[in-house]
Amino acid sequence: MDLKPTKPLSGFIELLPAQQRLFDYCAAKMQNVLRIAGFSMLDLPAIERAEVLTDKDNWDEIETQMFLFQKGDTKMGLRYDGTVGLSRYVAGHLNDLVFPFRASQFSKRYRGERAQKGRYREFYQMDLDIMGINSLSTNYDAEIINVIGCALDSVAEFIGPNEVRIGSRPFWDAIFDWLEMTDAQKKDVFVLIDKRDKMGDDDFAEGLRDSLNNAHKENVIKSVFTNGYRDFVNKTDKLDFAIAELDNFMNLLTCMGVKNAVVDLSIARGLAYYTGLVFEFKLLNHPELGTAAGGGRYADLAGKFSKTRIIGVGAAIGFSRIFAALLENNQLDLSGFEALIDVAVLIMGDGNIGYAAGVVNALRDAGIPTASYLDTDKKFKNQIEYADKIKAKFSIIVGDDETKSKVVSLKDMQTGNQQTVSVVDAIKMIKAA
Amino acid sequence: MDLKPTKPLSGFIELLPAQQRLFDYCAAKMQNVLRIAGFSMLDLPAIERAEVLTDKDNWDEIETQMFLFQKGDTKMGLRYDGTVGLSRYVAGHLNDLVFPFRASQFSKRYRGERAQKGRYREFYQMDLDIMGINSLSTNYDAEIINVIGCALDSVAEFIGPNEVRIGSRPFWDAIFDWLEMTDAQKKDVFVLIDKRDKMGDDDFAEGLRDSLNNAHKENVIKSVFTNGYRDFVNKTDKLDFAIAELDNFMNLLTCMGVKNAVVDLSIARGLAYYTGLVFEFKLLNHPELGTAAGGGRYADLAGKFSKTRIIGVGAAIGFSRIFAALLENNQLDLSGFEALIDVAVLIMGDGNIGYAAGVVNALRDAGIPTASYLDTDKKFKNQIEYADKIKAKFSIIVGDDETKSKVVSLKDMQTGNQQTVSVVDAIKMIKAA
Repeated sequence: MDLKPTKPLSGFIELLPAQQRLFDYCAAKMQNVLRIAGFSMLDLPAIERAEVLTDKDNWDEIETQMFLFQKGDTKMGLRYDGTVGLSRYVAGHLNDLVFPFRASQFSKRYRGERAQKGRYREFYQMDLDIMGINSLSTNYDAEIINVIGCALDSVAEFIGPNEVRIGSRPFWDAIFDWLEMTDAQKKDVFVLIDKRDKMGDDDFAEGLRDSLNNAHKENVIKSVFTNGYRDFVNKTDKLDFAIAELDNFMNLLTCMGVKNAVVDLSIARGLAYYTGLVFEFKLLNHPELGTAAGGGRYADLAGKFSKTRIIGVGAAIGFSRIFAALLENNQLDLSGFEALIDVAVLIMGDGNIGYAAGVVNALRDAGIPTASYLDTDKKFKNQIEYADKIKAKFSIIVGDDETKSKVVSLKDMQTGNQQTVSVVDAIKMIKAA
Repeated sequence: MDLKPTKPLSGFIELLPAQQRLFDYCAAKMQNVLRIAGFSMLDLPAIERAEVLTDKDNWDEIETQMFLFQKGDTKMGLRYDGTVGLSRYVAGHLNDLVFPFRASQFSKRYRGERAQKGRYREFYQMDLDIMGINSLSTNYDAEIINVIGCALDSVAEFIGPNEVRIGSRPFWDAIFDWLEMTDAQKKDVFVLIDKRDKMGDDDFAEGLRDSLNNAHKENVIKSVFTNGYRDFVNKTDKLDFAIAELDNFMNLLTCMGVKNAVVDLSIARGLAYYTGLVFEFKLLNHPELGTAAGGGRYADLAGKFSKTRIIGVGAAIGFSRIFAALLENNQLDLSGFEALIDVAVLIMGDGNIGYAAGVVNALRDAGIPTASYLDTDKKFKNQIEYADKIKAKFSIIVGDDETKSKVVSLKDMQTGNQQTVSVVDAIKMIKAA
């Protein structure tokens, strides 16, 4: 019989135990930051009705982008982000939740497209959202940025420092209105701004010319990136409002202790959803990873589920994009995560297993990670090799003499020193090490 | 426009924040028991190649049982258990892992069948497996049971006490051989034994008659459940061996401190996979939940992936079956989980947000779960109502006076007492409460 493949499907992440421990450690650290900041952890279904996942009905195209299946008459599929499920959940629980509601989801999401380098088909994101009914101060936008910054800082030893770049939809709307651009031009130019990073100055200028065909207007747009947004005060009320909002926002970020926040009006976050300020976090030591986290504000988060207007500001941290990528590239220091087990208990013969079982329980009750080697007929050489391979700090050897005298032989695996002590003393020495 | 449904698909679990906190708390407690017992946490893909998920090729039937989809030429689907992925993973990493390898997975699994009461289509299981190359003492079977018992005990305040019932495949094999049954009879009778719990004595007797048509043989089988397995010593070597194995095993469980372990030869765990002792945990206060955890031994875990013989003993704890079921039936005390946030910081006017931001950071840095109410133009009445609704223990009020004097007003939400104190003193008082 042919053997079946042992590699996971392409685009799926599979970590070795030490890598997984680092991944889990960072997730727990970041989630703790969110918990302290009052975010409720939610765990929503990974499968949603297709009509919830998408408003489109070009199923052939959707089918290539998502994992879809049909059960009876119901089309359903795997979620591609956390926002769809969250808006459904919040709309369905308006009376069960307290608003402003802070929610976080750390969960797997799925993209059905062909796998590419750095694009996973199954990946973790960590979402933060704050939702209000009918109103929600932009102060919450700053709070989201503050909390993401703290979460990324909490694992800075692994991923280094971060910066956040702030864009503004209202600023561009005001510019476009001032320049009396048509709706089609607004859309075209916004797409250009969104892609500006990747296209270079010449292509950007050419794109503007194609769309606007007006040297003045083209130059105004270009000057935003050279002269900065403050050049546009005293032009229109709408522009003044957008500029003041941005300035106040940057001040608030400073007050909140957010470091490395800069205005970057090329941050647009695509065309969908967002209606206010938008932002993206980058890792300063890992520009190759692109956007580490990003988000913005939705004026009407759950319109398709509820007549109640739910305003949301939210963001997703690309957890797999950061950690799985760095792990797969061997860019993370695993040395602190190689060893899981502090003590290996080695048992010389089945007759000693009863006494040894009590020793193991005592170690575990004391909170010491302990594995027992229970193939008791194996030679000492094999057993100590196991202790060595799992990088145990100590091994505890239980033979006939130890059982008889109700003691253990405690071996320091680093120094090789071995001594016969009581279980209570062994625990003290292990904890002191 | 019609509003889209806000309920999750049937068979999918969705918890409210306090329920989720209890769920997560219990998962973390149990996972900690496994970590202390030396189990490596693995997080494998939820999607596998169809050929990995199943050896069958009756796709119509498989399609109704699983969530399957096709991408390009590749049929794939969502895992229905943790064992398939684990055996693939271990077979693919023989040189990266140390054996005996202790692995645990806490993850979502999927069943595509129509949802029924108590049968979820997406559910969590917590798996424990210990795997060895070529040999693995049955002492590890006892270790698995010991660790599951400790894990369930760690959340006994919520789910009550448990018991474990031990069955033996080798015992039945020995009985069947002694009775000189045909292979077809062995299979039939084993199915009857597996279903005996649900069918009642009369149907069981009738089933035996249909299959064996031999009063002596039928009576022998029935007598196992009335007279016990020790009645069969000194019949054949194979029976003596199986009986001694079971007795030694029960002794070992006692040595390990496993409480409430009983032999129950009606425990068969279906027909698949298992080749040695098998076991099931029940919750004594919740018989309606059926099996809380179950498992056994595989003589050849990964035969379809590797020519290396991997012996495994493993079990799955039905985490959703226990906790989601008890939560949905309101059988768990949520009182300790209603409040997430210790302190609500209420800010009277946008002018005070800068000072308040520093207060919030100081509280969070001290590890105090803190939510700031950032709609600073809302009246005090609305703001204190928020503090009340989220069940905050304290609210901290920051108005113009507090900002000017660099103090805060600390209000005990239980007593209503309010006092003006420094931030440092506020933190001390909150931590002491």
